[in-house]
Amino acid sequence: MIAITRRETFSAAHRLYNPAWSDARNEEVFGKDANPNGHGHTYTLEVTVRGEIDPETGMILDLRDLRDAIRRTIIAKVDHANLNLDVDFLRGLLPSAENIVVACWQQLAPAIAPTRLYRLRLWESENNSVEYYGE
Amino acid sequence: MIAITRRETFSAAHRLYNPAWSDARNEEVFGKDANPNGHGHTYTLEVTVRGEIDPETGMILDLRDLRDAIRRTIIAKVDHANLNLDVDFLRGLLPSAENIVVACWQQLAPAIAPTRLYRLRLWESENNSVEYYGE
Amino acid sequence: MIAITRRETFSAAHRLYNPAWSDARNEEVFGKDANPNGHGHTYTLEVTVRGEIDPETGMILDLRDLRDAIRRTIIAKVDHANLNLDVDFLRGLLPSAENIVVACWQQLAPAIAPTRLYRLRLWESENNSVEYYGE
Amino acid sequence: MIAITRRETFSAAHRLYNPAWSDARNEEVFGKDANPNGHGHTYTLEVTVRGEIDPETGMILDLRDLRDAIRRTIIAKVDHANLNLDVDFLRGLLPSAENIVVACWQQLAPAIAPTRLYRLRLWESENNSVEYYGE
Amino acid sequence: MIAITRRETFSAAHRLYNPAWSDARNEEVFGKDANPNGHGHTYTLEVTVRGEIDPETGMILDLRDLRDAIRRTIIAKVDHANLNLDVDFLRGLLPSAENIVVACWQQLAPAIAPTRLYRLRLWESENNSVEYYGE
Amino acid sequence: MIAITRRETFSAAHRLYNPAWSDARNEEVFGKDANPNGHGHTYTLEVTVRGEIDPETGMILDLRDLRDAIRRTIIAKVDHANLNLDVDFLRGLLPSAENIVVACWQQLAPAIAPTRLYRLRLWESENNSVEYYGE
Repeated sequence: MIAITRRETFSAAHRLYNPAWSDARNEEVFGKDANPNGHGHTYTLEVTVRGEIDPETGMILDLRDLRDAIRRTIIAKVDHANLNLDVDFLRGLLPSAENIVVACWQQLAPAIAPTRLYRLRLWESENNSVEYYGE
Repeated sequence: MIAITRRETFSAAHRLYNPAWSDARNEEVFGKDANPNGHGHTYTLEVTVRGEIDPETGMILDLRDLRDAIRRTIIAKVDHANLNLDVDFLRGLLPSAENIVVACWQQLAPAIAPTRLYRLRLWESENNSVEYYGE
Repeated sequence: MIAITRRETFSAAHRLYNPAWSDARNEEVFGKDANPNGHGHTYTLEVTVRGEIDPETGMILDLRDLRDAIRRTIIAKVDHANLNLDVDFLRGLLPSAENIVVACWQQLAPAIAPTRLYRLRLWESENNSVEYYGE
Repeated sequence: MIAITRRETFSAAHRLYNPAWSDARNEEVFGKDANPNGHGHTYTLEVTVRGEIDPETGMILDLRDLRDAIRRTIIAKVDHANLNLDVDFLRGLLPSAENIVVACWQQLAPAIAPTRLYRLRLWESENNSVEYYGE
Repeated sequence: MIAITRRETFSAAHRLYNPAWSDARNEEVFGKDANPNGHGHTYTLEVTVRGEIDPETGMILDLRDLRDAIRRTIIAKVDHANLNLDVDFLRGLLPSAENIVVACWQQLAPAIAPTRLYRLRLWESENNSVEYYGE
Repeated sequence: MIAITRRETFSAAHRLYNPAWSDARNEEVFGKDANPNGHGHTYTLEVTVRGEIDPETGMILDLRDLRDAIRRTIIAKVDHANLNLDVDFLRGLLPSAENIVVACWQQLAPAIAPTRLYRLRLWESENNSVEYYGE
């Protein structure tokens, strides 16, 4: 098993808020993450793709093509955006790191076929991250 | 010359916007940084304090006291906040990294007297930062 | 499969020493790691927990709860401690990185049920680490 | 499952070039990576070994022995070298990150028996890496 | 005094070689750095610019403009290049980190006037760097 | 002004303790840093040397010579040591980061003449550091 990884970053605002709940309940559960004016992160997204080495190029997938696919399907939409309000593929979703990473997977997987996504890892900070291996 | 440094992080939303300008002018100058719904960063603040080594403790200033002063005067106000709307000491200020760092200096300098601030450095991302040495 | 990770650090002294052996044998096997007065590390512990995303919160486990569990069951005991002498859950154990990480797993796993530990990773330095996935 | 990891770095030149192709085809596929005069990287190699904890030493494998094996079989040959021209175990190979990591596996695996390689990860830059788990 | 910093990376090959010396003398002085086939680095360049905060924008210099100036005058020429052979502004220069950083200063300083370069810092690896403050 | 920097790491135990004080006073002032059994750090030492570029070599000082001087005069003595008990040049000194860095300066400065030390920076952790520019 061999896999390549490309790392990209983006800067976004978000707020944890469940509209089915009262404001008091949101604040109780999410604490400062529910701040109505939002907060934000410099997110790091690490995309790992597995496949076979092409004997002619020595590559699974050209890292520039992977970079372009990530930027086109994800970064162009989430960078300098508000994840609660501005991003089509996050519409109606509570933008926790877990939900963001699952939604990014759905954006990116079709764009890199026939190679296959193996892992997405998203850092909100140097101390907090989430990793996802698909369903 | 000897100095100690303490690093802290905070997560905040912001938007670059000059209210004296039209929206079109703001977007022309600030680009995506002017997005009305904001974006955000995981900021890193590096605080450097100079002084004399106390011969009894071997320290300029106890790093736990420095940490507590930074957290009380700055982090408690900016972490999980919107820098355009939520922070008393940034009120009326365009929250560029440059303006934030000058405002942080004014918050922190009195809190650590008689030692003296030597440098504040603020990172918005691993690629972009600002450093300030006072007036 | 989805998992969240929280990173914490602690500063501790230790010494590699097998009491069943002579001092000469300890020095032969462990080299400078057997120094009788000890040495130390700024350890980094990365805790990864897997589970299901709660549809109401968008989270597997609140990272603040995970942080608190790690600090209460591990960091409060090992930070600023001597791992050979001061830590109840390491008593009688040769404090190699491998043995520390297994002992940390036993401390932490019950504290985060019903979510499940997936991986612990412990760095002694930027070059040396150990990872453990449970028995 | 428990595993230890040792990280080493090396500085090398390389060029992506398939001798079965015309220069034009090489430039079309590899872009600037095909520059005839080469370019280079400060590579980071992360070697992960799994095994059983020896109850007498608390270790899977002494990290100093692992370090020495990596340096002897890999770093001594690739550091400050041109990967297209100078390295016996890369002879005839297109030195993509994928091909390098597979070749490093073949060098290192016999040198650390009876413990077993679990994973090699090679970074060309902070944004681009490849990981390999053996055939 | 206030200053902003932008970090960029590039991948290049080089060789330390003084053409006024014999090959034996080059190898004696530069060791493996004199390898005729070259070696390489993933360089990191940190550019620091000082100035006054523009009261209308809150900025010394737009970091995107700084980024573009660095990429246009330096990165476009040195990335994926051989520093001994391919770069006009390094022609005839022994490409030590010290000489590279002085040459980069001369390239960049005119491009960002009227703001002023304060510091360039160039890393060849995480352990080795050079910083330059102008003549 | 031009300067080169070499980074080295070492692993050491220490304890903050002033023998002129009672144990109670030590604990009051130093908290957990006064733990009688000690704690430890993976220290990082960054050594910066200024000088003139030698026109024949393009270097201020060969980084391998600087590395060797740091290892011979400092790292060989402090790595895998207890800083309160094992190190000749720290004898009788309270091993705070401030005192360590001043003592390292005195060790290293004569070893690199005629080039001159410009700055020493010592990290106890990613959040805490001290920098020293000489008397």
